[in-house]
Amino acid sequence: MGEIRGNVIVGQSGGPTAVINSSLVGVYKTARDRGAKKVYGMLHGIQGLLEERYVDLSDHIKNDLDIELLKRTPSSYLGSCRFKLPEISDNREIYDKIFAILDKLEVKYFFYIGGNDSMDTIKKLSDYSLLNGSDIRFMGVPKTIDNDLAATDHTPGYGSAAKYIGSITKEVIRDGLVYDQLGVTLLEIMGRNAGWLTGAAALAKCEDCEGPDMIFLPEIPFDVEEFMHKVAELHKKKKSVVVAISEGVKTKDGKYVCELTDGIDFVDAFGHKQLTGTARYLAEKINREVPGCKTRAIEFNSLQRCASHIVSRVDITEAFQVGGAAVKAAFEGETGKMIILKRVSDDPYICVTDIYDVHKVANVEKKVPREWINETGDFVTPEFVNYIRPLIQAELTPIMVDGLPRHLYYTEKLNK
Amino acid sequence: MGEIRGNVIVGQSGGPTAVINSSLVGVYKTARDRGAKKVYGMLHGIQGLLEERYVDLSDHIKNDLDIELLKRTPSSYLGSCRFKLPEISDNREIYDKIFAILDKLEVKYFFYIGGNDSMDTIKKLSDYSLLNGSDIRFMGVPKTIDNDLAATDHTPGYGSAAKYIGSITKEVIRDGLVYDQLGVTLLEIMGRNAGWLTGAAALAKCEDCEGPDMIFLPEIPFDVEEFMHKVAELHKKKKSVVVAISEGVKTKDGKYVCELTDGIDFVDAFGHKQLTGTARYLAEKINREVPGCKTRAIEFNSLQRCASHIVSRVDITEAFQVGGAAVKAAFEGETGKMIILKRVSDDPYICVTDIYDVHKVANVEKKVPREWINETGDFVTPEFVNYIRPLIQAELTPIMVDGLPRHLYYTEKLNK
Repeated sequence: MGEIRGNVIVGQSGGPTAVINSSLVGVYKTARDRGAKKVYGMLHGIQGLLEERYVDLSDHIKNDLDIELLKRTPSSYLGSCRFKLPEISDNREIYDKIFAILDKLEVKYFFYIGGNDSMDTIKKLSDYSLLNGSDIRFMGVPKTIDNDLAATDHTPGYGSAAKYIGSITKEVIRDGLVYDQLGVTLLEIMGRNAGWLTGAAALAKCEDCEGPDMIFLPEIPFDVEEFMHKVAELHKKKKSVVVAISEGVKTKDGKYVCELTDGIDFVDAFGHKQLTGTARYLAEKINREVPGCKTRAIEFNSLQRCASHIVSRVDITEAFQVGGAAVKAAFEGETGKMIILKRVSDDPYICVTDIYDVHKVANVEKKVPREWINETGDFVTPEFVNYIRPLIQAELTPIMVDGLPRHLYYTEKLNK
Repeated sequence: MGEIRGNVIVGQSGGPTAVINSSLVGVYKTARDRGAKKVYGMLHGIQGLLEERYVDLSDHIKNDLDIELLKRTPSSYLGSCRFKLPEISDNREIYDKIFAILDKLEVKYFFYIGGNDSMDTIKKLSDYSLLNGSDIRFMGVPKTIDNDLAATDHTPGYGSAAKYIGSITKEVIRDGLVYDQLGVTLLEIMGRNAGWLTGAAALAKCEDCEGPDMIFLPEIPFDVEEFMHKVAELHKKKKSVVVAISEGVKTKDGKYVCELTDGIDFVDAFGHKQLTGTARYLAEKINREVPGCKTRAIEFNSLQRCASHIVSRVDITEAFQVGGAAVKAAFEGETGKMIILKRVSDDPYICVTDIYDVHKVANVEKKVPREWINETGDFVTPEFVNYIRPLIQAELTPIMVDGLPRHLYYTEKLNK
């Protein structure tokens, strides 16, 4: 075990997950246990750090109850950002500024919990560090409900989102059967380019539930008329049809289905389009074209990433582990790496951590393999379900106070 | 205790709740325990009964595990309907038909679990029974997430919906703070004419959460421009604004806010408009008029009524009790009545059942009293929160199998 040469800083970036704070706890607790004097938290990631917004985490995580509450607190405790660092050659000043702030804080270990864009940040910072002979070490801690990070078997955050999607899909299917009437329920699920989350709706197909009737992932071009035809065929056999569909499905000619509506488009800092309305568009089309059919468009929305009240214990444990493993690796001399999860076996489920060169994963989007989608492109295969199933196992019961789940509160400083 | 003179039939009507099956269990178990030979279940309520669609519940609820699973199964196990009986004078034939079916089944006790429209059904059937010298007894079992039934302190189903709304409002508030950016999150909550559900968002305001910033109930006319002004005022103090708003808010001149959009209107069998899009309309208005403001419109949707994975134990217990009390009352000679809940004290919370003439409750909608809404009409008072708080207490843990909540499955017969 290497000697601790300085302080630690940790940040959270990108969209939150229900377990992202478990990784924060994993970094904090492991760093403290291994002798780090100070563990700082960047407020709103690298963007906040540039404005010198940070906290000493010991002032906020004071005891074991705080740790347990933080694990169960949704959204990024420290706040997040969507801030893409420029290429080093384009703007050395911003890097100089970051390193000056880190030096001032005597930080030698930098941890960033995030997805693809965050790994790009780690790549650039570690490159700059190398170029300039700095001894600050940079490690990525994987996180994303989208599960689209390369190299790792899966990402922490995905299992809990999948468990939430599976659970409420079961409930919504029961709900859809309540009236003896022709109906289509459309579940719109997150995942811009990768269908990992949408595919998780297949978990609802089990001994006590018939599952959704169709599942459409963004990996396969979507044909609106063919969809209408399939709904009509299903209606010959059953009244209540339930369809899970990704927010990001596109037609053959590359148009988002939600763009077929008259909505307004919004673009975030990374140039990603903010999508909404795929389910709504299809529901309205069915309303117009199928007489007597009741439709319901349900957007699972941000609950997919913040439903801490029903998390997977496997997921929250792994989220902690990747945080801890990143600290261990950095303290032992690694930099420019990301922690990954390696599945050793499915049954019994065994998964270990490993380290991986961040240069090889940054900006690579992992999609659902074609062979995990059925031939007709309207459901996932049993292999896909076997892959997800271990990730949703067991629960971490919320700490209930006066009827509601309790969180670790840290708003007065963030909400201003 | 009266002698059991014949069989029992029970039906579920109107929108489901997370605990409506607990009332079904309450009727079934109490009737069996008190000696009823057969307990039939109508499939899809009175509408199904007219087509002679029913089951012998003993064939489906076989043991104590089934009972525990059924309590935790969302949506109406027997299916539901929205079927309004005609006035007796307008169509005696339909009544003759119902009574002929009941006679054939040797049914002497008829239980209907539902809200306002279902109590109207009980009223008409018991009137007809009286007019024709039938000895079949008709009892209403209250149920609705909307909490808009008169005479009863509250309705089973409301407490669990309120607990769900309070819990996810907390989670969504945390999520809204993640980016350091001007934002408005709009939570659209069910409740066409009464603000009981929307008001439950105030539960999120507690020691570890700042709660929503504004709450708009349908009881108070909504002024769009005033709303925009209030958002701007809030943005001077904080970046992330969270607003809970009823799907049914109307402007001063009686127009639904969601009608201000270009959506298509749908009307159900009772002539109720199907509403959607209030939050979306306001989110789009903010997008157009407030530069740099990120908006998110979240419709809580059917999860409000089917989120069995997070129910209130108080609620699920009371749902069972009103079912049992209805059986007891009918067996002892009552008819044309509904079971109500009477709150004896708030702290400690004590609530008992009583019986009430269904003629006095049918078709009366209970609204939130004006004095439980603040003067400016944009939040609820502490009295309102004190009223709800006892109803969301404690949990009934789902029975988890392979990572998901287990339900009692009964689809092959219903979904056709």
